[in-house]
Amino acid sequence: MTSIIPSALQKFQNKWNEGKFVCVGLDTEYSKLPKSIVENFKSRRDAILEFNKSIIDSTIDLTLCYKPNSAFYEGEGAEGLEALKKTVEYIKSKDDSLPIILDAKRADIGNTNRGYIKMAFEEFGFDAVTVNPYLGTDSLQPFLDEKDKLIIILCKTSNPSASEIQDLEISVEDSPKLQNITKNNHVKIYQFIAFLAKTKWNSNGNVGLVVGATYPEELSEIRKIAGDMPILIPGVGSQGGDVNASVKAGLDSKRQGIMVNSSRGIIYASSGPDFAESARKATQKLNEEIVLAIK
Amino acid sequence: MTSIIPSALQKFQNKWNEGKFVCVGLDTEYSKLPKSIVENFKSRRDAILEFNKSIIDSTIDLTLCYKPNSAFYEGEGAEGLEALKKTVEYIKSKDDSLPIILDAKRADIGNTNRGYIKMAFEEFGFDAVTVNPYLGTDSLQPFLDEKDKLIIILCKTSNPSASEIQDLEISVEDSPKLQNITKNNHVKIYQFIAFLAKTKWNSNGNVGLVVGATYPEELSEIRKIAGDMPILIPGVGSQGGDVNASVKAGLDSKRQGIMVNSSRGIIYASSGPDFAESARKATQKLNEEIVLAIK
Repeated sequence: MTSIIPSALQKFQNKWNEGKFVCVGLDTEYSKLPKSIVENFKSRRDAILEFNKSIIDSTIDLTLCYKPNSAFYEGEGAEGLEALKKTVEYIKSKDDSLPIILDAKRADIGNTNRGYIKMAFEEFGFDAVTVNPYLGTDSLQPFLDEKDKLIIILCKTSNPSASEIQDLEISVEDSPKLQNITKNNHVKIYQFIAFLAKTKWNSNGNVGLVVGATYPEELSEIRKIAGDMPILIPGVGSQGGDVNASVKAGLDSKRQGIMVNSSRGIIYASSGPDFAESARKATQKLNEEIVLAIK
Repeated sequence: MTSIIPSALQKFQNKWNEGKFVCVGLDTEYSKLPKSIVENFKSRRDAILEFNKSIIDSTIDLTLCYKPNSAFYEGEGAEGLEALKKTVEYIKSKDDSLPIILDAKRADIGNTNRGYIKMAFEEFGFDAVTVNPYLGTDSLQPFLDEKDKLIIILCKTSNPSASEIQDLEISVEDSPKLQNITKNNHVKIYQFIAFLAKTKWNSNGNVGLVVGATYPEELSEIRKIAGDMPILIPGVGSQGGDVNASVKAGLDSKRQGIMVNSSRGIIYASSGPDFAESARKATQKLNEEIVLAIK
């Protein structure tokens, strides 16, 4: 019996068609878990997993995708990674068509990346992974070769220091290809990354970009360079990104193509026993804001 | 009883004073283990650990430091991470004064990094970690705040595509501080990273840089910018970097300050039952080449 597994991009496409745009960031920290969870579970692994399950149960029908950040789980050692693995399994058991992103921001030289790929896709079963472009093409190629996965490249990150390296202006006098995005013979690093993603790294049609909601103008520029490439937009909620502005700036030509991430704003919407219900309300509210901005 | 643990940098300094400059890259892959190991151990964890122990036993008296790359262990899932943890414990049990670097090339926004820091330093007990500068200062700060650890920032990596982003030329007409390294009002990204490392990120004196042996000219430029900051130099051996040229280019004012890494060239020097002995010979040969270049 052959089962046809939709590619990662198709999974996102199906959810966008259902009007879902919220990426729920499962950045679960043991120290931030509600008392009601901590008191009932002896092991950190079980407490983290139970919290995630409750969040998933209350949000999955509203959600485009989930995105656990690897750092939070690695910080809890082997127990954390077990909780992460079981979280992915739990999401798949509830909705196998829902894509899951590993936010890992990895990149190493050449085949060293095989270890990260094996971890993300074979061991854990993620559909997508975030990667860092600083090392260039050969550090991304092993990821890009994973045709059925979505490889989401950091372009303009949501943090305050993002501009320090990413906004540096580079001279491109001799590049006719870059003409459209050149200003006084210069382009910014994040524009150049978007350009490379579009023209060099996307030959398998499996590339996305990370652009913070905290930089809506830059998001708009990047969308022009990147065409209809999916854009993961973190930074709404706690980080202060404007939903309306970033959605309008980020939409592709089909008025889709965005994953708007909220982590703390959803999973810690309440620290009380109503945390799951509050997470549902926060997800619903965010998706409604996005849909309103799209219209 | 108070025990005084030397800072990571002091650990390197002590080994340099003993004439040791080789960083042994423990990039252990299960599929590359000698038959003699695989046949004797049922679990991957035990086979990887036993291989590492044999390499450590045969090289530790010659070695400046060890540097396992996280990717190889993560690729083996929980078993791989257990092997990594036990490898670190084993090194410490044999020589607690020998520094160990986690090659992880991590960086995330702000406090998300706490997870990686907890993993690297609290859970595993590493002395140093490699990090990626693309996200800027706030993504490095939680690492830099770890005063007793060495934070080694990717500057010019050893891979062929390193130039793609790292060699881009940025305009710096208005920066008098950068005058010494400016050429026609431009500096390259890797020079700018070295400049930030020296002038902004090193206030705790705990910063190092990664510069590939495959780029000795750039290494020489970076050494001029970075002063006596330690430089981790990967890329000799299998990657083709020239030992003599890169040592001469990389030495600090005390003719020390370098960690010359070889991974495959040492740990897979032989695939036969003599692998440990061959690893010793390869380490000895490399250290002799370095010492000769220093003189």
